[in-house]
Amino acid sequence: MNITLIDVLEFVGTYAFAISGIRLAAGKKFDWFGAYIVGFVTAVGGGTIRDMMLNLPPFWMENSIYMIETFVAFITVLLFSKYLISQDSTLFLFDTIGLALFTVVGIQKTLEAGYPLWVGIVMGSITGAAGGVIRDVFINEVPLIFRKDIYAMACIFGGVVYAGCHWLNIDEQLTPLIAGGSVFFLRYFADAKHISLPILNDSMIQDKNEETTSNSDTL
Amino acid sequence: MNITLIDVLEFVGTYAFAISGIRLAAGKKFDWFGAYIVGFVTAVGGGTIRDMMLNLPPFWMENSIYMIETFVAFITVLLFSKYLISQDSTLFLFDTIGLALFTVVGIQKTLEAGYPLWVGIVMGSITGAAGGVIRDVFINEVPLIFRKDIYAMACIFGGVVYAGCHWLNIDEQLTPLIAGGSVFFLRYFADAKHISLPILNDSMIQDKNEETTSNSDTL
Amino acid sequence: MNITLIDVLEFVGTYAFAISGIRLAAGKKFDWFGAYIVGFVTAVGGGTIRDMMLNLPPFWMENSIYMIETFVAFITVLLFSKYLISQDSTLFLFDTIGLALFTVVGIQKTLEAGYPLWVGIVMGSITGAAGGVIRDVFINEVPLIFRKDIYAMACIFGGVVYAGCHWLNIDEQLTPLIAGGSVFFLRYFADAKHISLPILNDSMIQDKNEETTSNSDTL
Repeated sequence: MNITLIDVLEFVGTYAFAISGIRLAAGKKFDWFGAYIVGFVTAVGGGTIRDMMLNLPPFWMENSIYMIETFVAFITVLLFSKYLISQDSTLFLFDTIGLALFTVVGIQKTLEAGYPLWVGIVMGSITGAAGGVIRDVFINEVPLIFRKDIYAMACIFGGVVYAGCHWLNIDEQLTPLIAGGSVFFLRYFADAKHISLPILNDSMIQDKNEETTSNSDTL
Repeated sequence: MNITLIDVLEFVGTYAFAISGIRLAAGKKFDWFGAYIVGFVTAVGGGTIRDMMLNLPPFWMENSIYMIETFVAFITVLLFSKYLISQDSTLFLFDTIGLALFTVVGIQKTLEAGYPLWVGIVMGSITGAAGGVIRDVFINEVPLIFRKDIYAMACIFGGVVYAGCHWLNIDEQLTPLIAGGSVFFLRYFADAKHISLPILNDSMIQDKNEETTSNSDTL
Repeated sequence: MNITLIDVLEFVGTYAFAISGIRLAAGKKFDWFGAYIVGFVTAVGGGTIRDMMLNLPPFWMENSIYMIETFVAFITVLLFSKYLISQDSTLFLFDTIGLALFTVVGIQKTLEAGYPLWVGIVMGSITGAAGGVIRDVFINEVPLIFRKDIYAMACIFGGVVYAGCHWLNIDEQLTPLIAGGSVFFLRYFADAKHISLPILNDSMIQDKNEETTSNSDTL
């Protein structure tokens, strides 16, 4: 068995993303099966949409490691949920690593499939952020990333940096590190400085349901 | 026209699943068109996701019978909705037959596409249970199967039994019957004994929206 | 660059559909990124599902014009949202043009892929109406078209007219115009006469959540 860097990147991200899905599902009183599925979909959903759009077999169907990783994440939440409360900053770190890695993997797979860089940027963002969208649809919440933007914006920023490296003929080994690092640091920077995109106001529409999403504090 | 056993299995399940979708849509005051679409998606949604992941054409695009079956289900609800109230146990029977058949069909199509047994188990469960997830997303409810587990768990159990038969070299004609029967009996058994998986608790997250899904009693 | 009639049809529809998605997202207090994505998905979502079911690459991955068009729509809402209030009838016109064009494009692509006319009717309707379904799932509302039917029914009607033209051997250049015109006029006629399909009642199910969708007046 040959483990490539891409494999390692995908494995780490899977665990972190699955944890986020499983915890939100637990907050909605899902049963064990439902929580596992939400965790799995959070972890592999973005890459699955990417692969289906690129007309490739969904990556998790070719290796059972992703289902096993999600199971490890499930056991973590099941046994250590109290302990996890004190680990918010660690989980934020893991999630951000996952976001950076997934974005780069998504870009690279798209370029390998013969698409131009701008499609790579889109697919990198889908790989990083779409799993969370499916997760939020499943738990019946407005997707978090549409309200707390620096998540997906970091993917797009990393994609633009990747394209920039490409145009500047930067070393092929170095480019993914620079791009992934950009995703990582933008998200940390935005979080530390409480930076977020403005809300779009449409004067015509008055939304009477002033509901707040209950998952907004927990990712 | 050559009608195979697989065709017959798919036809029966389509009707039962469509009824469940149409009734839930009716409960949400959908119009005729909306109710038909929810019924259709409940019936063919799981198989469609399976086919798209296996890179096959969605099965219902190759034969209009599934749209016709859904229309028959629609007419049934339209004309006999009062009568259906007294037929809950019959509908549970039909739905469980559908679940068993769809699971086995999903496993077999996946193996025919060259995937290993564990992918077959996943695809069998998607075929059986994913239509109901799309249905619940469309009617804006938390998917029922994530809270009432024995539905999808029965698919997984049937898949494991299928794999077991395979490893024991049991006759190829017999294996689908044993696997489908396992799905069927596990669901009936769990229903009779009120067995369900435990809820996953995450101490960190307190869900303030203590909403109960209005479809939890009606599948 | 060769611009075909189909290209032009798709470009016009993209703008109108994106506006509808962006405005509804704004009504839900989405941020700029979220509003852009909802606009984009409303515009290209139906065609993307169609292409994936036909095993073609999603059309927007082959030309960046659709992302640019959505950006223009976003800027329109950002800068002129107050002005748009007085433009409801213009937006209804644009949206209906989009609906008619997308339906015809969907039918033609499906026939080119070798499918029969009835699949073309289904795919035309998916192209026209599925983007709005994804939009409503993202903003966490029951899909509008399942309650206000004449939207998708107009697609189906246009598809049937298209099939009728085909059977009558009407000129191949004329057929899409007649079919698209049928979509256009049925929607305008239904809107003017306040025609809608009946609600489906299921006596068994009493829905306690008498919620009204906040987007029902704004499409």
